[in-house]
Amino acid sequence: MKLDVIFDPVGLPTSEVAGRVVFVVDVLRATTVMCTALHQGARGIVPVSSTEEAMRVAQALGTEDVLLSGERNGLPIPGFALGNSPLEMTEGVVKGKSLVMTTTNGTKALLATQGAAEVYIAAAVNVSVAGVRARELLELNEDLVILCSGREGNFGLDDAYTAGRLAVLALGGRRIRKGLNDAALVAVDLVRRYGNRWERPLSLSAAGRHLRAIGFSSDVLYAAHEDQHPVLPVYRDRRITLSPLP
Amino acid sequence: MKLDVIFDPVGLPTSEVAGRVVFVVDVLRATTVMCTALHQGARGIVPVSSTEEAMRVAQALGTEDVLLSGERNGLPIPGFALGNSPLEMTEGVVKGKSLVMTTTNGTKALLATQGAAEVYIAAAVNVSVAGVRARELLELNEDLVILCSGREGNFGLDDAYTAGRLAVLALGGRRIRKGLNDAALVAVDLVRRYGNRWERPLSLSAAGRHLRAIGFSSDVLYAAHEDQHPVLPVYRDRRITLSPLP
Repeated sequence: MKLDVIFDPVGLPTSEVAGRVVFVVDVLRATTVMCTALHQGARGIVPVSSTEEAMRVAQALGTEDVLLSGERNGLPIPGFALGNSPLEMTEGVVKGKSLVMTTTNGTKALLATQGAAEVYIAAAVNVSVAGVRARELLELNEDLVILCSGREGNFGLDDAYTAGRLAVLALGGRRIRKGLNDAALVAVDLVRRYGNRWERPLSLSAAGRHLRAIGFSSDVLYAAHEDQHPVLPVYRDRRITLSPLP
Repeated sequence: MKLDVIFDPVGLPTSEVAGRVVFVVDVLRATTVMCTALHQGARGIVPVSSTEEAMRVAQALGTEDVLLSGERNGLPIPGFALGNSPLEMTEGVVKGKSLVMTTTNGTKALLATQGAAEVYIAAAVNVSVAGVRARELLELNEDLVILCSGREGNFGLDDAYTAGRLAVLALGGRRIRKGLNDAALVAVDLVRRYGNRWERPLSLSAAGRHLRAIGFSSDVLYAAHEDQHPVLPVYRDRRITLSPLP
């Protein structure tokens, strides 16, 4: 039984995820947005790596039920229907739609999971549901990876803290120090350091500071609102949909 | 004034180090070995990325005063005079010699510093000296980077803790939260978490556990021995030599 945390997907060898169950975290904001959109009734989300690919996929899917969404440097992409703010993902806008989504960091993390046994989406808004599934898997002796999206290839405090919260739930008080990698040890320590308050690490993080600077303070508050979307999105066959709850 | 910690050099854009002063950390064991060898009288160390390059450089330098050193997966390289253990770097062996050195992680970090204004070598064995220099530089309003070597592209607790110790010394009690990146915030937290005892984070780390498993427990203890080699190695023109003490 192993529980590894990876702080950023850059240079991640496929052997690290091959055959393992991966939880992808990009709390500010991609995985928060995904949970929100699916909970508000979106049919599915296709993560892609570029705006060009987004347009190609949208055309292939047929445009009526498809919404292009995403960001570059946190800002909406010209011509796209939606940005990367969870506040945009209202039922009226997303219900019954498929989203084609491209973001700076979260998408890269998802695309780095090739070969994984299963890939789930986690954020503060669904952390307890994700934690229940992670705990079940550890009890079945599965190896887990919590993959942080990080920030342009660097460590992000926001995702590391989220990984810590998820790890603590997965462990459920068990001590498996030998089964944790160095990053998992530190992620769990961050929970001791910051306690249960999401606002602090999210606001302190470079991602949080950047969002505040470009006018998205309310997104940071939204992302810090624990368990408001108790869903478990799963990434399978290049598409994210809702998985039955654990 | 900025103080950034980078947890691993994989995918590091040159813009992150360009024109800045970098402290490279690979406490288990490359930077510990470098400080030890230079303090014991080695004339210089040339870090190279492969065994083939090591042999080519050794031949170009002339073989008499040159010692090949390094490791792969922690173990000595067949045919090389020295491995990567600080215990091998005695005065009798290294005095007056040039070392050509290749290691799994530390060398990669050094080679990733291209374009930096200056590159220093730091470990527990010289942390106070490195800390004095770092503090002087922050007082001169320089931007600093502490670059951890990590472990095969992943986060290493041993280097992150060392980075934290160095950052605490550099800051000298000043609070420049806005000048610290997310990794620096966490590295400083690790010092709060583990206190001043090097043994704990070094032994807990994957690198420390691996060294113990392959019979190098005494290297971990050696690397945890603070300030036993009060030198400040500098990497310049592809060669590491002693810098005058700050």
